[in-house]
Amino acid sequence: MGNKVTPRTLSGFMELLPQEQLKFDKIVRTLQDVYASYGFLPLDTPILESSEVLLAKAGGETEKQIYRFNKGDTDLAMRFDLTVPLAKYVAKNYSSLTFPFKRFQIGKVYRGERAQKGRFREFYQADIDIIGDTKLDIMNDAEVPSIIYNIFTSLGLDDFTIRINNRKVLSGFFEILDLSENVTDILRIVDKIEKIGPDAVAKELEDLGASSEQCREILKFISISGSTQQVIEQLRAYSNKSAVFDAGVDEQEAVANGIAAFNVPEKNYKIDLCIARGLDYYTGTVYETTFNKHPEIGSICSGGRYDNLAEYYTDKKLPGVGISIGLTRLFYILSTMGYLNASAAGPAVLVIPMTSDLSYAIGTATAMRAAGVPAQIYFEQKKFKHKIGYADKLGIPFAAFIGEDEIAAGKVTLKNMTTGEQVTQPLDALIPVILEQLEKSREQKIITVD
Amino acid sequence: MGNKVTPRTLSGFMELLPQEQLKFDKIVRTLQDVYASYGFLPLDTPILESSEVLLAKAGGETEKQIYRFNKGDTDLAMRFDLTVPLAKYVAKNYSSLTFPFKRFQIGKVYRGERAQKGRFREFYQADIDIIGDTKLDIMNDAEVPSIIYNIFTSLGLDDFTIRINNRKVLSGFFEILDLSENVTDILRIVDKIEKIGPDAVAKELEDLGASSEQCREILKFISISGSTQQVIEQLRAYSNKSAVFDAGVDEQEAVANGIAAFNVPEKNYKIDLCIARGLDYYTGTVYETTFNKHPEIGSICSGGRYDNLAEYYTDKKLPGVGISIGLTRLFYILSTMGYLNASAAGPAVLVIPMTSDLSYAIGTATAMRAAGVPAQIYFEQKKFKHKIGYADKLGIPFAAFIGEDEIAAGKVTLKNMTTGEQVTQPLDALIPVILEQLEKSREQKIITVD
Repeated sequence: MGNKVTPRTLSGFMELLPQEQLKFDKIVRTLQDVYASYGFLPLDTPILESSEVLLAKAGGETEKQIYRFNKGDTDLAMRFDLTVPLAKYVAKNYSSLTFPFKRFQIGKVYRGERAQKGRFREFYQADIDIIGDTKLDIMNDAEVPSIIYNIFTSLGLDDFTIRINNRKVLSGFFEILDLSENVTDILRIVDKIEKIGPDAVAKELEDLGASSEQCREILKFISISGSTQQVIEQLRAYSNKSAVFDAGVDEQEAVANGIAAFNVPEKNYKIDLCIARGLDYYTGTVYETTFNKHPEIGSICSGGRYDNLAEYYTDKKLPGVGISIGLTRLFYILSTMGYLNASAAGPAVLVIPMTSDLSYAIGTATAMRAAGVPAQIYFEQKKFKHKIGYADKLGIPFAAFIGEDEIAAGKVTLKNMTTGEQVTQPLDALIPVILEQLEKSREQKIITVD
Repeated sequence: MGNKVTPRTLSGFMELLPQEQLKFDKIVRTLQDVYASYGFLPLDTPILESSEVLLAKAGGETEKQIYRFNKGDTDLAMRFDLTVPLAKYVAKNYSSLTFPFKRFQIGKVYRGERAQKGRFREFYQADIDIIGDTKLDIMNDAEVPSIIYNIFTSLGLDDFTIRINNRKVLSGFFEILDLSENVTDILRIVDKIEKIGPDAVAKELEDLGASSEQCREILKFISISGSTQQVIEQLRAYSNKSAVFDAGVDEQEAVANGIAAFNVPEKNYKIDLCIARGLDYYTGTVYETTFNKHPEIGSICSGGRYDNLAEYYTDKKLPGVGISIGLTRLFYILSTMGYLNASAAGPAVLVIPMTSDLSYAIGTATAMRAAGVPAQIYFEQKKFKHKIGYADKLGIPFAAFIGEDEIAAGKVTLKNMTTGEQVTQPLDALIPVILEQLEKSREQKIITVD
């Protein structure tokens, strides 16, 4: 062949080597299992949708980033999140679904952002949502932090804080301060306090027209802290001035009590009155999750309560609560920081035949698989050193040698590639040894933070 | 809100209801587990690639179907199979990979075909390939049918035949007949014999310029049948006339012997000299798999051996052998035929609180999850009938009632939703009952053909 095309992957598109992909997949399976353990059902919507449907709501920044094109007469767009497809799905299938509808979806989404390190144009989101028909009990909002807690501890991460707030508490408070007209702007400014600090927040609030008294009150308010009970007591001091505020505090309290019933340790969650989370979408509880050791990463799992999932598609009132993890970015960060270990399993055994008749080796591998041991046979005609080097390079924990002696004795020589230890025994005696090691590796959590 | 956008999904795009999605996901997990048990490593390439890279080889029909568009200055295309991205990946990462490189990939691909029933524009392919560096042992070709066998029997399908042939046998035979110049055309015609019958094949061969003697020889040849050993004996009658033919028969024999060593039952495979499989790509062993009861479906798992995976990207010689399952189409067929059962598990228990204090119910669900039981709590304030109806509608096998009596006694009332049987016992005594049922359901294979 003459001219070759240079094999390359687009910038902003993650493509992993096999050992890294094993880790990514272990994370995905952990998430799937945690979601399923709470009764969430899987969903898989198309990546391509009609632009009319997908962009029913979008505008501004989002719309610019969309991959949108025509095929024949059809105006198509690639999904940019998993929420809009969910809204479409629930509106479309309303009469076939049973509410509350709990679904998880782990899938790729597309945003043509300017490419830079750690930013992806194709990335996985892992979303869960609980959608009610007309109403959805506040206890669902209390369950969500327990799911977040389970996700991260199942992955092996313990040092995180789930920050919880309620949009009603914030907007009710601004109502009390007579700042209702600017709630959206104020929330946007307040949301930045961790990034820009209280002085810059005060400055921006003043630019917006808030008096210095109002600024002082806002800064005092968002610095309320302590245990959830302490925070709620302090919030009660503002009671009976705004119905929205009071409703928000009641919700906060119900959520706080619920989280405790779910046995989430106190060190892993707190009420944080600075969290506002987006502008229009959320209407009640909001969540952010921060990795304590690395606040610079920002939130690794966020979400909240909304009143109306699918208002662009249906008149049905569909309130919900949900969270989303930017999985590709999280994986990139954890991987870059060296927090992912090699516990994700490829094959457990490399069966290495050393005779020309391969029947015994094939029989051995087949028996291993039947016993639940992933086993690969090395078929290539290479020197022994090359064969054993293959197991080594791929990090396969055991090598099984099948030579004339083993065949004659009805045994297998098993080498532990980590310890170098080598034993020759009937296969039945070796399988428990391999399974024990395999189980250990499977139980090891994928994240290790020293 | 005023005007609504009609929520719809593009035609040719499969979007399942939750109970169906559970089944689809059970199939995917089964495939992942079988692939992994043979040492295949996962791969996940981008759905979007540069058009230059993705279309390095494509032409004709394929190119017309591609979803291709510009974003800024970049000419992009959505992948239309998983083989081209694999070729790119192996060429790009050649020095980081260890050969033989065994990878599986289950992912969506895109073809803008004319929409019709059972045809999809977005569909999953499930591919495995074994890629060698310069050489790849023929025993890999023998392993592939054992994987196919394991895939379908693990899914619950036993009534299938893996049809195996070798392109060298076919082209060597045409060389013997002095028809070498037309091999590609002849293969294309021969490949159609099951669809159009021997007479129409003979007619097309004659139109191509074959003599009636040559036609007779071809039809005689492709009707050779019997056990693999019998077929190989009959093929040996043509020996010593073409080196290509002889090499092909040697490969066929090695593959046939290997399959037997892998313990694939004889009823599940045969040599079928009519199988040619595509035109340019395959160079040795080829496979098709047919569902005996439904030959009209065509092949449900196909593939073969090729000499050069990535010749459009690299001068390295990378021979391989692989198979592909069109998963979305297969799912559609099995589902339409009613061959998929409800063994795929959602939540095992719906915990139904009947007091206003939810702590005991939450504690019960949390303890269930810790014991490996997926448990959902019903939080909504509804009548009892509605709560139990929820479990019923979702097919949740157990309901756990938590009322004042249960809380006072430290027990749980568990109702088996299938039998109606109801017992009140401490949770510890109930968990083994639930786990046993869960295990049964997990072990049940997803396909049931009566």
